[in-house]
Amino acid sequence: MPPFDLPEGDPFGPHNLPYGVYSRTGSGERTVGVRLGDHVLDASAAARAIGSPHAPLLSRPTLNPLLAAGRTTWSEVRRTLMEAVTDPAHRAALEPLLHPLAEVTLHLPFEVADYVDFYSSEHHARNAGAIFRPGGGDALLPNWKHLPIGYHGRAGTVVVSGTDVVRPSGQRKAPADPVPVFGPSVRLDIEAEVGFVVGVPSRQGSPVALADFREHVFGLCLLNDWSARDIQSWEYVPLGPFLAKSFATSVSAWITPLEALEEARVAPPERTDPLLPYLDDTASEPAGYDLRISVALNGHVVSEPPFSTMYWTAAQQLAHLTVNGASLRTGDLYGSGTVSGPADHQRGSLLELTWNGRDPLELPDGKRTFLEDGDIVTLSAWAPGPDGLRVGLGEVSGRIVTG
Amino acid sequence: MPPFDLPEGDPFGPHNLPYGVYSRTGSGERTVGVRLGDHVLDASAAARAIGSPHAPLLSRPTLNPLLAAGRTTWSEVRRTLMEAVTDPAHRAALEPLLHPLAEVTLHLPFEVADYVDFYSSEHHARNAGAIFRPGGGDALLPNWKHLPIGYHGRAGTVVVSGTDVVRPSGQRKAPADPVPVFGPSVRLDIEAEVGFVVGVPSRQGSPVALADFREHVFGLCLLNDWSARDIQSWEYVPLGPFLAKSFATSVSAWITPLEALEEARVAPPERTDPLLPYLDDTASEPAGYDLRISVALNGHVVSEPPFSTMYWTAAQQLAHLTVNGASLRTGDLYGSGTVSGPADHQRGSLLELTWNGRDPLELPDGKRTFLEDGDIVTLSAWAPGPDGLRVGLGEVSGRIVTG
Repeated sequence: MPPFDLPEGDPFGPHNLPYGVYSRTGSGERTVGVRLGDHVLDASAAARAIGSPHAPLLSRPTLNPLLAAGRTTWSEVRRTLMEAVTDPAHRAALEPLLHPLAEVTLHLPFEVADYVDFYSSEHHARNAGAIFRPGGGDALLPNWKHLPIGYHGRAGTVVVSGTDVVRPSGQRKAPADPVPVFGPSVRLDIEAEVGFVVGVPSRQGSPVALADFREHVFGLCLLNDWSARDIQSWEYVPLGPFLAKSFATSVSAWITPLEALEEARVAPPERTDPLLPYLDDTASEPAGYDLRISVALNGHVVSEPPFSTMYWTAAQQLAHLTVNGASLRTGDLYGSGTVSGPADHQRGSLLELTWNGRDPLELPDGKRTFLEDGDIVTLSAWAPGPDGLRVGLGEVSGRIVTG
Repeated sequence: MPPFDLPEGDPFGPHNLPYGVYSRTGSGERTVGVRLGDHVLDASAAARAIGSPHAPLLSRPTLNPLLAAGRTTWSEVRRTLMEAVTDPAHRAALEPLLHPLAEVTLHLPFEVADYVDFYSSEHHARNAGAIFRPGGGDALLPNWKHLPIGYHGRAGTVVVSGTDVVRPSGQRKAPADPVPVFGPSVRLDIEAEVGFVVGVPSRQGSPVALADFREHVFGLCLLNDWSARDIQSWEYVPLGPFLAKSFATSVSAWITPLEALEEARVAPPERTDPLLPYLDDTASEPAGYDLRISVALNGHVVSEPPFSTMYWTAAQQLAHLTVNGASLRTGDLYGSGTVSGPADHQRGSLLELTWNGRDPLELPDGKRTFLEDGDIVTLSAWAPGPDGLRVGLGEVSGRIVTG
């Protein structure tokens, strides 16, 4: 019987306990909470109530101090909170510390240091290649199977789920246009991704080995890397996407600790090309994650991208990101890249789902190629957990508004 | 007669007063200082000594609170400090607050929020185009004259002048190589740039107009965007440079306030292509800066790039960066892009100076194509100031070391 009258099999049961930062409606004070069903538990008060020494780490307006504390502490805090919510002896003390989600405001759970975005789904890369370079030979570029392609994004415009996204304006130029025109993007898209949150920093000049992934990365979240395709196609040569992506990136309000996802670990797809030693994971423990993502547009599921199909793992991405000596900071965030599976209904962007607008989606409220004002996009996901339970990931949702 | 026995015409006289953060040798405490000749003045103690209300803003381990305070306060603080160092009545009180530069440690003067790098020298872009796309028609890509091309870099690896730079390792692949090889970069380069420091933030969804540049940008510094050309050429398609740049970016320890550079403002080069309204500065006050940069390799000047030749101004870069609604934060840093003038000895990178290694530089200690271990690169600069004085910019220097 789950505690606190949670329904049997709730994906946000005591086996999950993702972390967030909330404030109670009417009070401005932010503090760390863990999600339990459709409630949030005041994590520091709960820790204090059961005599844990870690209460001060949780009595903060951001997760960063917990992130920085390192893997041993992460485990201890998690064990403490699991004990708190499962031992009936604590029930009376804890019930006043649970607040319905409807009565709290959820905030960006951590201060984002640097934000990097990868491009690690082979299916996505092949789709994008086929769309943008039709008839151009192999849809994958020559470097793709040798390294996880990535680039830096804008950390300052990462926003929490529920934040409206203002349609960006910018320059675009169709091939036939003599000069670029300026205006609101007419090809506004989503990218369904998973974001990884770095806890423990590293020293500049010292790469982080593949095997040290879980010493540095605390957990993951869902991430929507909003993308203006028309702005992107005009600006991106030769230095990559810039304004097409920098206006907003949405993340879920809940960070799922990697420890909650032990049962979801799976081997990544077979490596078809030999890897350089710093990326070679053929002898490593499984570093993929079996996350079942769902993309809903105005409440209608339009895609179900399987994260287990990602070619490059988060461990490889971290090893690559740091192999040149780039240091990590607490709060660094990196996105997996758009998650697309092999099937048509597993594509993680409208670019792919509509084949660059050629094949509109038929929704109950009309056809869609790219996003219209008022559209609400929601990513949700779950992963296999212990004892046949599901581990729910916090959803990430955003609505498009005019500027 | 300059105060405090400064030599006549010192480029770091009372007309300049760049800001930095220092600690006295043997003490760990960081505080804001202004440079006066070869000394640093304790800025908060000086403000206190003359009864200024702004002392608390300067009694911090970083410039960020001053940056956030806005243009009116920037002017007041500057006026206060100019008065302090020029009025003989204050001399006795201030002399104990001056410390020789040799007896202090200079720190990264502000917490970098996001770091963006532009590509705004037409001469540099044409040289790079001619080197990488020989015989490929116009060396400038079609978008170049329509928008200031830029991309995000890694904020967490921005380091202060004097910090050693570890030669990065990474993948490279010559066209003839069947597969990429891994190892220390063999084509390590510099990029001589000017960095602009944002003080006043902006709201997500609200672009910053061209005319509001000086409401948001506090000052500038010299910046060396170290670049591993071999890593770059293999990784950069299709999402731009990543590890080739993210290992280190060096900035000078002194931030020169824009107010010290009023006499250095010049009109940018003639705009050869019509600009969209948000970038059109043809009717604006001059937004270029006449900074005379010098690049020294192991003490030998190898280039003198003139910043006045930059096609895109810092005001245009800021307007472009935010036109999609991307917000600014206090501490945002953006680089001008490599500064290269029209003449051979005005090129801001070894890539251009040696024409991709074809024409080695002849230095007293041997030939150079790209950087060798132990090499020290120093950028320095000055600008025209009031009354025929020069405004010195703080140098940015770094030495290449093995990992």
